[in-house]
Amino acid sequence: MKLMRSWVESANDPETQFPLNNLPYGVFSVDGDDPRCGVAIGDMILDVAAMEATGLLRIGDDPVLDVPFWNEVMELGPQAWAQLRLMLFGFLVEGAETKGSVAQYLIPQARARLHMPLLVAEYTDFYAGMQHAKNMGAILRGSPDLPANWLHIPIGYNGRASSVVVSGTDIHRPLGQTKAPDAAMPSFGPSKRVDIELEMGAIVGTGSTLGQPITTAEAAEMIFGYVLLNDWSARDIQGWEYQPLGPFQGKAFGTSISPWIVTAAALAPFRCPAPAREVPLLPYLQEKEPGFYNVTLEVLMQPAGAAQASTIARTNYNRVYYSAAQQLTHHAVCGCEMNAGDLLGSGTISGPTKAEFGSLMELSWGGKEPITLDGGETRSFIEDGDRLTLRGHAQGDGYRVGFGDCTGRILPALKMPGWE
Amino acid sequence: MKLMRSWVESANDPETQFPLNNLPYGVFSVDGDDPRCGVAIGDMILDVAAMEATGLLRIGDDPVLDVPFWNEVMELGPQAWAQLRLMLFGFLVEGAETKGSVAQYLIPQARARLHMPLLVAEYTDFYAGMQHAKNMGAILRGSPDLPANWLHIPIGYNGRASSVVVSGTDIHRPLGQTKAPDAAMPSFGPSKRVDIELEMGAIVGTGSTLGQPITTAEAAEMIFGYVLLNDWSARDIQGWEYQPLGPFQGKAFGTSISPWIVTAAALAPFRCPAPAREVPLLPYLQEKEPGFYNVTLEVLMQPAGAAQASTIARTNYNRVYYSAAQQLTHHAVCGCEMNAGDLLGSGTISGPTKAEFGSLMELSWGGKEPITLDGGETRSFIEDGDRLTLRGHAQGDGYRVGFGDCTGRILPALKMPGWE
Repeated sequence: MKLMRSWVESANDPETQFPLNNLPYGVFSVDGDDPRCGVAIGDMILDVAAMEATGLLRIGDDPVLDVPFWNEVMELGPQAWAQLRLMLFGFLVEGAETKGSVAQYLIPQARARLHMPLLVAEYTDFYAGMQHAKNMGAILRGSPDLPANWLHIPIGYNGRASSVVVSGTDIHRPLGQTKAPDAAMPSFGPSKRVDIELEMGAIVGTGSTLGQPITTAEAAEMIFGYVLLNDWSARDIQGWEYQPLGPFQGKAFGTSISPWIVTAAALAPFRCPAPAREVPLLPYLQEKEPGFYNVTLEVLMQPAGAAQASTIARTNYNRVYYSAAQQLTHHAVCGCEMNAGDLLGSGTISGPTKAEFGSLMELSWGGKEPITLDGGETRSFIEDGDRLTLRGHAQGDGYRVGFGDCTGRILPALKMPGWE
Repeated sequence: MKLMRSWVESANDPETQFPLNNLPYGVFSVDGDDPRCGVAIGDMILDVAAMEATGLLRIGDDPVLDVPFWNEVMELGPQAWAQLRLMLFGFLVEGAETKGSVAQYLIPQARARLHMPLLVAEYTDFYAGMQHAKNMGAILRGSPDLPANWLHIPIGYNGRASSVVVSGTDIHRPLGQTKAPDAAMPSFGPSKRVDIELEMGAIVGTGSTLGQPITTAEAAEMIFGYVLLNDWSARDIQGWEYQPLGPFQGKAFGTSISPWIVTAAALAPFRCPAPAREVPLLPYLQEKEPGFYNVTLEVLMQPAGAAQASTIARTNYNRVYYSAAQQLTHHAVCGCEMNAGDLLGSGTISGPTKAEFGSLMELSWGGKEPITLDGGETRSFIEDGDRLTLRGHAQGDGYRVGFGDCTGRILPALKMPGWE
């Protein structure tokens, strides 16, 4: 597909993340006013909340953009999503007759503060990166063999929705319980092994019913869009706590998402084939139309005071073994009720070479091989003040579809009240 | 403490679960009208939503009982909780001068349908039953040794809030992926090992801030009340999925809670000492005032068509090794934001003898020793049509504090759309 030209000139720049082909959904505020729904176009934001309020834009019978999140749009379902996308396209396409009335609703992104684009109903984190699973096995258990169920089940665990924050939110280093392999007793204090996980997040737009399984075709229709997702992880807390019931507090101090939700429709031109299957998937997980996408991904690290960020990894969303629709199907097939606003993390995305590893745990091989940044600093894990940033885009013919940066700094741990 | 007498005569019956000492919070409807907040007293429900609407009852500045859940009361905090309890006591105590105006707000429980008493924000399930942990180790891993972290960490995992239902809701047998030990490949279909877990649930009433750790004293103040909780489990799905990231779909098809939230204040007279510690707890988990309670618990099973239910287990909430306040502290200490309506399952409560085991997995020892019910039926796990019921009460001097039954039937699995 080629660039679709807009009368918003900055949207026609081949380097912008937000051409007319994209039209991602976010929530923004200007000068401290109330957050509201907006759509990114070039270097501007279209204030669709104001357009709905003045009657210029209407989807469905009742207002859905009068709240500072996109969940009410999600709940309208795929037909309304397609209708909204067409309306926005009509407003912003080159030569649109409505340009005169729409232009007043454009606000420069440079003036806006971005907020959480959705209310996260529940958050689930999957484990669909095969190279990541092999690396973690090799580092933690001494063997790169996949868990016995890995090629059959899109393995996942429930995460903590209350810890999901929008890009730009700084994260305090977590306190927790850890135990060194040679220590007799565990100890309590700030994590020494704070890490990132490079992931994509899929946002469930329409729900399912408790007790009622769903098919992969239904699951694909339920997905509203995608975000970049950094599942901050405390490897020392996680390592001591995770057996037998899985990750818990090592993953609950923060998960960052990009400010813009890129719709499934905007990503559709970038679908790519499913990976080769080492063993056949059970029929309930098979997809007629594979839900994999070609999205290049990048991780940047910038210590406090460093002149610029260093790229520490580059990989692609198409490295995952299970699509979001397959993960959603597995999630709901037992009868688990899914709801608008559920967020599904893909799992850490790592490619086959070190340059493609999506976590510091892998890049520094469990801390044994520190990486060197462009400014000469070395890092095994994240130090206080370090800024970590995820970037991603799908590359079209003369245009890009991006998510905006997913960034955050690690701040020092907060103290327990009454403790020294 | 002795029975406090009410002018509602049925509340003075030593067998009632709802004397004036209790005053638990629920949500009810009559004849299909809108669900609303109520308080159980004897065999009646006090329609506190209507009392607030007419101005007879007011807590705080704004209405909080005009919604069909107790979360808005929770958010007012402990002082308001104490104030409400005193007001209710004043309305219902024997000799109350307001009896004439309050009596019209009493509705027979026999006429009411009970609904979810809260909006569950997020649901976390812990693992605080030591005998249960030992039994599961022995059955699943061939050794009753506790996991290395068990005596140090109140182990927990995030569950699925969307699957939490009120007592009386029937549950469909889940579909899922399982693999027999001798099978080459997994298969897909209805679970053959559906089980219960006898638990108590603690309800978080006031929240914490992302990044900010809390103390056990703060955690104790944050707990609004307690419910009975049955964490329905599919042991065959769980067994195949749970390594390395913990339970997921084997626990996501339903979790039932009792219809009445018994407040922490009502349970306060039943506090009991903490269990002996085999190793000292880290300071952040130590409690000045241990949050353990003497609550007798019972599990009943009734096959479809059976004349009556058989009691299959009897134990006590005081069997747990970690209090809800300790679990909440651990949950939040990494900086995880907690919110009003968060539900914390205690973990399966099992005592040292078979008569006290809180799951069929333990009672039938992994299915190898089926139990025999009073009517002669045998069961290793739950069959379609079986009704399982949890009951619990704290025994005072001439009175009881109860939760109402936590009951549900297992119905046949629903089919995948388009599948045979």
